[in-house]
Amino acid sequence: MSLSQADMSTDRPQFSHWIRSSNNITQQFMAIGGQPDIVSLAGGLPAAELYPVEAIRQASSRALGRWGSAALEYGPVEGFPALRAAIAERMSREHGHQFGIGNILLTTGAMQGLDLIGKVLVDPGDLIVAQFPTYLGALDAWRTRRPSYKPLTWNLDDPDFLSALQSAKFVYSVPNYSNPTGALVPQNARGGLLSRVIEANSWLVEDDPYLPLQLTGSSGPSILAADAATRPRGTYDGPVIYLGTLSKSVAPGLRVGWIVAEPRIVQLLALAKQCSDLSSSMFSQAVALEFLESGVEAEMIPRTVACYRERRDALCASAKELLSEWFEWEVPPGGMFVWARAKSPDIDTNALYNFALKEKVAFVPSSVFDPDGALTNALRLNFTRNPPEKLAEGIRRLCRAVERYLAARS
Amino acid sequence: MSLSQADMSTDRPQFSHWIRSSNNITQQFMAIGGQPDIVSLAGGLPAAELYPVEAIRQASSRALGRWGSAALEYGPVEGFPALRAAIAERMSREHGHQFGIGNILLTTGAMQGLDLIGKVLVDPGDLIVAQFPTYLGALDAWRTRRPSYKPLTWNLDDPDFLSALQSAKFVYSVPNYSNPTGALVPQNARGGLLSRVIEANSWLVEDDPYLPLQLTGSSGPSILAADAATRPRGTYDGPVIYLGTLSKSVAPGLRVGWIVAEPRIVQLLALAKQCSDLSSSMFSQAVALEFLESGVEAEMIPRTVACYRERRDALCASAKELLSEWFEWEVPPGGMFVWARAKSPDIDTNALYNFALKEKVAFVPSSVFDPDGALTNALRLNFTRNPPEKLAEGIRRLCRAVERYLAARS
Repeated sequence: MSLSQADMSTDRPQFSHWIRSSNNITQQFMAIGGQPDIVSLAGGLPAAELYPVEAIRQASSRALGRWGSAALEYGPVEGFPALRAAIAERMSREHGHQFGIGNILLTTGAMQGLDLIGKVLVDPGDLIVAQFPTYLGALDAWRTRRPSYKPLTWNLDDPDFLSALQSAKFVYSVPNYSNPTGALVPQNARGGLLSRVIEANSWLVEDDPYLPLQLTGSSGPSILAADAATRPRGTYDGPVIYLGTLSKSVAPGLRVGWIVAEPRIVQLLALAKQCSDLSSSMFSQAVALEFLESGVEAEMIPRTVACYRERRDALCASAKELLSEWFEWEVPPGGMFVWARAKSPDIDTNALYNFALKEKVAFVPSSVFDPDGALTNALRLNFTRNPPEKLAEGIRRLCRAVERYLAARS
Repeated sequence: MSLSQADMSTDRPQFSHWIRSSNNITQQFMAIGGQPDIVSLAGGLPAAELYPVEAIRQASSRALGRWGSAALEYGPVEGFPALRAAIAERMSREHGHQFGIGNILLTTGAMQGLDLIGKVLVDPGDLIVAQFPTYLGALDAWRTRRPSYKPLTWNLDDPDFLSALQSAKFVYSVPNYSNPTGALVPQNARGGLLSRVIEANSWLVEDDPYLPLQLTGSSGPSILAADAATRPRGTYDGPVIYLGTLSKSVAPGLRVGWIVAEPRIVQLLALAKQCSDLSSSMFSQAVALEFLESGVEAEMIPRTVACYRERRDALCASAKELLSEWFEWEVPPGGMFVWARAKSPDIDTNALYNFALKEKVAFVPSSVFDPDGALTNALRLNFTRNPPEKLAEGIRRLCRAVERYLAARS
């Protein structure tokens, strides 16, 4: 799914190297999401009907009344100071440590955090050890820096892994309800990974957007929390670079995310941010602050979790009825995705994708979550965006797509 | 003013190469701007008292009433569709051509546009031909891509320039009231540059943030307008990549900027944007749309221009009285800056800067506008942020700083 040569040909100066290895699949999914006749189980979108429109309207009015022109200024690069302090306080509450304002950088969604980490740590050819399969957005963010990858297989005594860790710039993991697999990394695996990272004196990027979406049981402590618990209270100075966001618990369109890290790397990430956009929207950040202070988020999360749990169960029930002949999956304990693996090596989900589009249903094929594009036996299904009856219709269409794909192959 | 080795030393994996050549001066200026006892003639900030706080408050309320949850969604990557259409219409009105929505990419300020251009066109070692001295933000944006530079000297028949143009990725120019010099590039020079770029089949990045700030006379047509006038009406397909912003005419904190370019490169820039932050704040963009439709901007611009004209004249009058023994400058016909060049080669504005800080006044030394850092005989003074009496006080302090600097040297 790389951009075609036709798109790239030009008499003008050549485009950057990374563009040749890029994908436009996220844009495709966003475009598909706008087509009303397609049931999109692709994308990673929240349920729009849960967005707190009226509370944000009130927060906007309060933010401009309270902060006036300060809400319409350029940065500080690091973010609107009062929101930065509120996020430090939130992180301290959620992760059991006293994080200082110097530990926090506010970003345009957690996605910009990934881009900034790439800018600060990655030069062409540098190695990243990444949880496999890997979040497409992280691969996208780092693509422009042209890294190489080794998979984090969770076999933490594997000599290949230990050797990669010595030369890698960082390890990337989504321990809570990973994108794309929905898997929850057990606490003992988290602890093992953290100790290997500390031994190798490396960095650990912990991407935690799905923390609020605990659908069955609890996520347990973050790796950041586990590391911080071993350190003196006060400004955090450990190896974890943690990414958080309001996109899943409030609304993505505010584009409010944050990085938690030791102050020196926060400064370098801020330098990279200055080079990227001078600052995020102070207006959005001031509104987010007022919204957080209203307490509405705390009321929203249980409603959101209940809604997503119902949707997850609806999708899994339909899939069990119609897809289990060909696919297997675990019911994810949280997050937004079901990761379905083909039982037969003969099923290629890249090829299946085209049959699915003909049946007016979209999913994400596994190849885009592999830095090498070679993983073609699985697919990612989103269950948060659509109501149960539409999810069931999507699975019916996907079932027809599989039947026609297999018929065409035989 | 590069980051010190002490900042960089670490037992952990090395940071990216570009960080060794970075500067933290913009962050310094932002920090200085927050110190009430310093008169900052640095930075490039608008007059905060002109920000339309109440009109933005009303626009926010209308935006959420009209667009509901759509104002709180993830992108489209290219921007909130109705604002994108409104910017296409605005560009068509201002630049005398029918630009299509496919010509427009909305960005987090024009600064992000510079970052995206670097991502799409620049690999390490690639050449950029840049108007000299060069806007610090552009140097910052492209630093992470590690380009080399040749100066655009406006001697357009110079063989060195013509040869550089053949191998360069693009030419960068700020024809309207350049940052840092405040200079207006004459129409014949613009036309000459455009024809050279067309002959070389290159790209021309026209950065135009100061278009609304025409303090004396008119800017005349943009290079984009001149090029578009020679082409068929309808979607623009020429070599100009134009950057616009609401930061100077409305308020910077909305972070609403845009790129105008041929649709194919808009698509690649959108791909780079997807890799950077998925999308800008849709909320900010929806609010900006409502604000633009209110017509308040058109009322604001004459007030802003009158305010800045008074401030420019106040700063120049004080400088004429107190600094003309040592410095010379042209009164800028627009924009935000006076560029003062030392009459004597013995004055080093990097050294002067430290004396200025002791006198509680800040300016930007010329070295940061030179990719090589070698230009040390000039300084940039901002006249938009402070009222006339504070500008006069700033110049008095700068005069004392020059006297003490010269006394210390003798």
